[in-house]
Amino acid sequence: MNNFEFYNPTRIVFGEGTVARLDDLVPANARVLVLFGGESARKTGTLDEVKQALGNRHVAEFGGIEPNPTYETLMKAVAVIEQDQFDFLLAVGGGSVIDGTKFVAAAVNFDGDPWSILEKRGRNISHAIPFGSVLTLPATGSEMNSGAVVTNKALKAKLPFASPLVYPAFSILDPVKTFTLPAKQVSNGVADAFTHIIEQYLTYPANGLVQDRFAEGLLQTLVEIGPKVLEDPENYELRANLMWVATLALNGLIGAGVPQDWATHMVGHELTALYGIDHARTLAIVLPGMLDVRRESKAEKLLQYGERVWNIREGSEAERIEKTIQATRKFFESLSIPTRLPDYGLDESSIDDIISQLERHGMTKLGEHGDVTPEISRRALEASL
Amino acid sequence: MNNFEFYNPTRIVFGEGTVARLDDLVPANARVLVLFGGESARKTGTLDEVKQALGNRHVAEFGGIEPNPTYETLMKAVAVIEQDQFDFLLAVGGGSVIDGTKFVAAAVNFDGDPWSILEKRGRNISHAIPFGSVLTLPATGSEMNSGAVVTNKALKAKLPFASPLVYPAFSILDPVKTFTLPAKQVSNGVADAFTHIIEQYLTYPANGLVQDRFAEGLLQTLVEIGPKVLEDPENYELRANLMWVATLALNGLIGAGVPQDWATHMVGHELTALYGIDHARTLAIVLPGMLDVRRESKAEKLLQYGERVWNIREGSEAERIEKTIQATRKFFESLSIPTRLPDYGLDESSIDDIISQLERHGMTKLGEHGDVTPEISRRALEASL
Repeated sequence: MNNFEFYNPTRIVFGEGTVARLDDLVPANARVLVLFGGESARKTGTLDEVKQALGNRHVAEFGGIEPNPTYETLMKAVAVIEQDQFDFLLAVGGGSVIDGTKFVAAAVNFDGDPWSILEKRGRNISHAIPFGSVLTLPATGSEMNSGAVVTNKALKAKLPFASPLVYPAFSILDPVKTFTLPAKQVSNGVADAFTHIIEQYLTYPANGLVQDRFAEGLLQTLVEIGPKVLEDPENYELRANLMWVATLALNGLIGAGVPQDWATHMVGHELTALYGIDHARTLAIVLPGMLDVRRESKAEKLLQYGERVWNIREGSEAERIEKTIQATRKFFESLSIPTRLPDYGLDESSIDDIISQLERHGMTKLGEHGDVTPEISRRALEASL
Repeated sequence: MNNFEFYNPTRIVFGEGTVARLDDLVPANARVLVLFGGESARKTGTLDEVKQALGNRHVAEFGGIEPNPTYETLMKAVAVIEQDQFDFLLAVGGGSVIDGTKFVAAAVNFDGDPWSILEKRGRNISHAIPFGSVLTLPATGSEMNSGAVVTNKALKAKLPFASPLVYPAFSILDPVKTFTLPAKQVSNGVADAFTHIIEQYLTYPANGLVQDRFAEGLLQTLVEIGPKVLEDPENYELRANLMWVATLALNGLIGAGVPQDWATHMVGHELTALYGIDHARTLAIVLPGMLDVRRESKAEKLLQYGERVWNIREGSEAERIEKTIQATRKFFESLSIPTRLPDYGLDESSIDDIISQLERHGMTKLGEHGDVTPEISRRALEASL
């Protein structure tokens, strides 16, 4: 096991009816700006429920935060906050709204160019406005971590940052709020959480016995509930388990003390940037190809993953690895997520553009060994043609 | 899944050589009282290492905190702190030292009779001195939770309390610090952690799919490493995994949103109080008996536990349950922990005294259903004759 530090002060308030807890969780005299995305937060009644729970606090709304939240939009929220002196933020939505709120929290009264927060990956943050979240879409884990990704439209750049100052003070997770989500968003959430786990788990043995068991437990649960969650959208227990899995998939716990990969995410980001493919779907395209071309360096963990998550115990090692990679691809497809480039209108010629982008962004030594060169990424994409 | 709240702000700093991190973790101008138990902290050099890491801060020592820390001793530490105005505490030791430090942190400048902190289970705490810990004995999980147990010798009472104000600010977990522990303390630690997990897991199905998988992962890891940790005391990887398992066994995570039992602990406490048997050993006596007499109400989880932790898949349900209970008893015995009352010089006549104590302490409706009456506790003890 590697040395590690684990610190996560976010308070999770989980279960049906917990939006009403906002009255205890938000300071009584706070001036609250509620940030959200599209109009679904209003249409579903969640926004009204939130405002009612906040009682007679001074509350205003800031809507319109996009999927892949943009710097341009977020800076408008910063201006509103600085002008009207809001001192508490409440994100109502999924990972994009929470990510955006993290940036806004750090950018208010920032001493310098706020875009430098992204350029310096958050290392230059010295304060942030406190904020909480009401999660409506289980997927990214942003509700219980200190990271965010922001897109600068003008610069055509999508950069991550992280800081212990932007852990949400609390996150309310009410599974009922997910009942009305479109099926595509739910399946994307399952695929996103699944890949977050794989990136922290499927590397090489490092004696993180508990980390492995926890990662496998999360994967087993997604395998068990993934397709059912789509078939039975108002099943509280299924949605509750999906919500808690997605949070635990990226709250720092399973990745503490073990090597991590993230090559699939880096290649996936270029697919989103170039072709606008949903983040989770890019992962479903790239991951099976990555496992395919990296099956030797990942052999030990692929065998363990196959046995413990997919119960693949028969055949030679090579056969079991092949079955395990196929099971992973089929899992995404069981969620109605296509996993091949042609399913998204792309072909071999697109791969050159993707690889050029990777090179331009310095993504030339990816993965847990730093050996995923652009050539390996190319072969991974070719494996998903 | 039940509604739940999860909040745990303790920073874990894990790995070899991390004692040196104290210089970053403790405020630079702090006046630090280092609390510890017996002289082993000094003999092993840990105390010197701690003081060296604290540099030129004002540092003093308070030793002599007992296993099952006493109110009488702890109040002496409170007096020292109030007199010399220490403003940061550092616990160096195992669960008893950390539990004691939690009480001391809350009792300093407490407005009222400090014993009322125990009587009111911590609900009357409004402030506590910040403190950290350097863990030397993996067992109780106190290093990452907000609970503690204190014994009042004069009143012959042993009471728990908890408060979010007594989470350690940080805990340093260096597995090397456990190499020199006596084997008995290590085996007790394994049994203690194992039973903490069982108390939160082996109840009835409640759709906590992840909680079950995590609990099973922790149990599987203890089954895998338990005896080896004893055979090979300087194996860093084994000790590292034991240390992390014991912390995760009682940090609030696996018990969030699911029913909990704790009857074994309540009966075990009486065995410690009456006969001075080590806490972990009382659990090893009581747990197999509890499972024996409660096999019907726990049938579904016993089958799941047997299959997933012990790989018991053959035979009728009754046979599998019997094998599972036997496997649990044998596990404790594989750690050289006897599991029967006569092994500790007790016989049937002792059971009356234990039951009388339980009744005197109001422990008459224990367990996840509140149906563990003194009669059931009696039968559980009889099953371990």
